[in-house]
Amino acid sequence: MASDSSQPSPLKIGIVGLGPFAQFLAATFVKQGHTLTAVSRTDHSLIASRLGILFFKSYDQFIDAHNDVILICTSILSLSEVLKSIPFDRIKGPTLFVDVLSVKEHPQKLLLQAIPVESDLMCTHPMFGPESGKNGWRGLPFVYDKVRIRNEDLCSRFLGMFQSEGCRMVEMSCEEHDREAARSQFLTHTIGRILSEMKIESTSMDTKGFQSLVQLKENVVRDSFDLYSGLYVHNRFAKQELKALEHALEDVKQKLQEKMDNTLEENSRSY
Amino acid sequence: MASDSSQPSPLKIGIVGLGPFAQFLAATFVKQGHTLTAVSRTDHSLIASRLGILFFKSYDQFIDAHNDVILICTSILSLSEVLKSIPFDRIKGPTLFVDVLSVKEHPQKLLLQAIPVESDLMCTHPMFGPESGKNGWRGLPFVYDKVRIRNEDLCSRFLGMFQSEGCRMVEMSCEEHDREAARSQFLTHTIGRILSEMKIESTSMDTKGFQSLVQLKENVVRDSFDLYSGLYVHNRFAKQELKALEHALEDVKQKLQEKMDNTLEENSRSY
Ligand SMILES: NC(=O)c1ccc[n+]([C@@H]2O[C@H](COP(=O)([O-])OP(=O)(O)OC[C@H]3O[C@@H](n4cnc5c(N)ncnc54)[C@H](OP(=O)(O)O)[C@@H]3O)[C@@H](O)[C@H]2O)c1
Ligand SMILES: NC(=O)c1ccc[n+]([C@@H]2O[C@H](COP(=O)([O-])OP(=O)(O)OC[C@H]3O[C@@H](n4cnc5c(N)ncnc54)[C@H](OP(=O)(O)O)[C@@H]3O)[C@@H](O)[C@H]2O)c1
Repeated sequence: MASDSSQPSPLKIGIVGLGPFAQFLAATFVKQGHTLTAVSRTDHSLIASRLGILFFKSYDQFIDAHNDVILICTSILSLSEVLKSIPFDRIKGPTLFVDVLSVKEHPQKLLLQAIPVESDLMCTHPMFGPESGKNGWRGLPFVYDKVRIRNEDLCSRFLGMFQSEGCRMVEMSCEEHDREAARSQFLTHTIGRILSEMKIESTSMDTKGFQSLVQLKENVVRDSFDLYSGLYVHNRFAKQELKALEHALEDVKQKLQEKMDNTLEENSRSY
Repeated sequence: MASDSSQPSPLKIGIVGLGPFAQFLAATFVKQGHTLTAVSRTDHSLIASRLGILFFKSYDQFIDAHNDVILICTSILSLSEVLKSIPFDRIKGPTLFVDVLSVKEHPQKLLLQAIPVESDLMCTHPMFGPESGKNGWRGLPFVYDKVRIRNEDLCSRFLGMFQSEGCRMVEMSCEEHDREAARSQFLTHTIGRILSEMKIESTSMDTKGFQSLVQLKENVVRDSFDLYSGLYVHNRFAKQELKALEHALEDVKQKLQEKMDNTLEENSRSY
C-alpha cells in the first residue's frame, strides 16, 4: 500500500518480537506507508506476509536490512534474554531504538546497557491495545521518554506516526510512568485478574456497574499472563499498590463487620 | 402534570422513606400521572412539593390518605425499625405493599410478619438508580417476586409503571435475587469502595479500563454507606462473596510471586 501525498517520507522499521501487540501496531504502520521487517522467536512468516511485512528467521538478516528504527516489542519478562541474542556489533551507523514495553524503567536500563553508543533511544508506552484501539487511536495516550536523542528529525518522524493517528502525546520520565502505571494500569489488570479467578459472568439482572466489570475482566484476560506479571515483576512501584489494594479490602471488610456487629447488638437489645 | 390518554388510570401511591432513590422514582411516577403521598423520618416537605407529592409528617395522616399501593423505600438497615412505627391496624381494606430494597429475603420476611393478612405483597428491586437511570429506564432490569398477590389487576398496573418506561422485567424469587446480587451488585459496590479507600484518581495516561474503574468508584460512593452495608448485613450470600474476593486476590498475588521468584532465580543463574 502506498502512502498518500500528505504523509512524510516512509521509514524503514524493524520489529523485534512479532506478537499480538506488534501485529496490531504494524497494521497501522503499513497503512501509513512505512517499510516493515520483523524477527521473532516463533516463525510468524505467514502472518507477516499477510500484513505486508518481510519476516526474517535470523537476527543477522534482520540487522542487514539497515532499518532506521528498531522497535522492541517482546514481552517484558523476555527482554533481557532477547537483548542477549541480538548481534548489536553488526549494526552499521546510528539507529533509533524504541521499545513499547508496558513498564519503562526496566527497558530503559537494559537498552542503555545493550545498544551501541552511537544509537539513539526512546522509551515509549502506547496506552492502548488491540481491544481499546480497535476503532482507531484518536484521543488514546501515547507516553514517551526521549532517553537519548541526537537525531531529533528521525525521532519526530517516529512520534508523528502516532500523532497523525490522533494519539494524545504525553511526555514523561520512565520513573514517573512506572509510578503512575502501577496505580492505574497494574491495578486495573489486577482487578480484572481477580474477577477472572472468581469466574464472574454476566447475569439476567446486571447493573451497569457490574457490566463494566465483566467487560474489564474480558479485556484484561485477553492479554498474556506474561504481560500482566511483567507489570508486577519489572515495575518497582507495583508491590506497594498490591499492598494498598489488600489494605483497602481489609478496611472495607472491617467497616462492614462493624455495621454487622451494630445490627446484631440492636437486635439483641430489642428482645 | 396530567397523564396522556394512552396511560392507564392513575394509582394512589404512598411512599415510606423519601430519600434519594424514592425521589428519583417519584419523579417518573408523577410524570406518568399517578397521585403520590409520602412520609419520612426527615421533613422532606419542600422537596416533596417541588416534585408534586403531598408530604405528611405523621403515619396516621399518611395511612388516612387510603393509598392503593404503599411503597417501602427506606434504607435496608432501618427497615425493621420503620415497620415498628407504622400503625398497620389503621389500614382499612386491602392494600398492595411493595418494597424496593436492594436485598430481597430480608424485607420479604419482615413484611410478611408486619402487614395485614388481607394485604398483598410484592418484593422488587429496580436494578438502577439516579446515575445509571438518568437518561431513562429503557433496557434496565426490574426484578420482582409476587410474594402474595390476590389482586392481580392492581399488581399488573404497578408493574406497568416500569414496563411502560421500557424496563426489562425479570421475575425471580427473593432467594435467587439475593444469591445473584451478592455476586454482581455487592461485588461491584465492594470494588468501588476499595478503589475509593485507595483514593484512585484519573491521570494523564489513563487506559480505557482504568477510566471505567474511576467511573465505577464515583458512581458507587454516591450511594450511602447504609445502602452498601445493607447489601452485606442483610444478604446471607454476601459473606461468601467477600471471602471469594479475598481468596481470588490471594491467588493472583501468589501467581505473581511465583513469576517474581522465577525471574530472580533466572537472573542469579545467568551470573
Ligand atoms: N497488548 C497490549 O495491549 C500492549 C499495549 C502496550 C504495550 N504492550 C507491550 O508490548 C509487548 C508485546 O505485548 P503482547 O501483547 O504482544 O504480548 P506479550 O506476551 O507481552 O509478548 C509477546 C511477544 O514476546 C515474545 N516473547 C515472549 N517470550 C519470549 C522469549 N522467551 N524469547 C523471545 N521472545 C519472546 C513473543 O515472541 P513470539 O511471538 O515470536 O513467540 C511475542 O513477540 C509487551 O512488552 C507489552 O508490555 C502491549
Ligand atoms: N440508590 C439506588 O440506586 C437504589 C436502587 C435500587 C434500590 N435502592 C433501595 O432503595 C432504598 C433507598 O435508597 P437510597 O438510595 O434512597 O438511600 P438509603 O440510604 O439506602 O436510604 C435512605 C432512606 O432511608 C430512610 N432512613 C434511613 N435511616 C432511617 C431510620 N433510622 N429511620 C427511618 N428512616 C430511615 C431515609 O429517611 P429520611 O430521608 O427521611 O431521613 C431515606 O428515606 C434502599 O433500600 C436501597 O437499597 C436504591
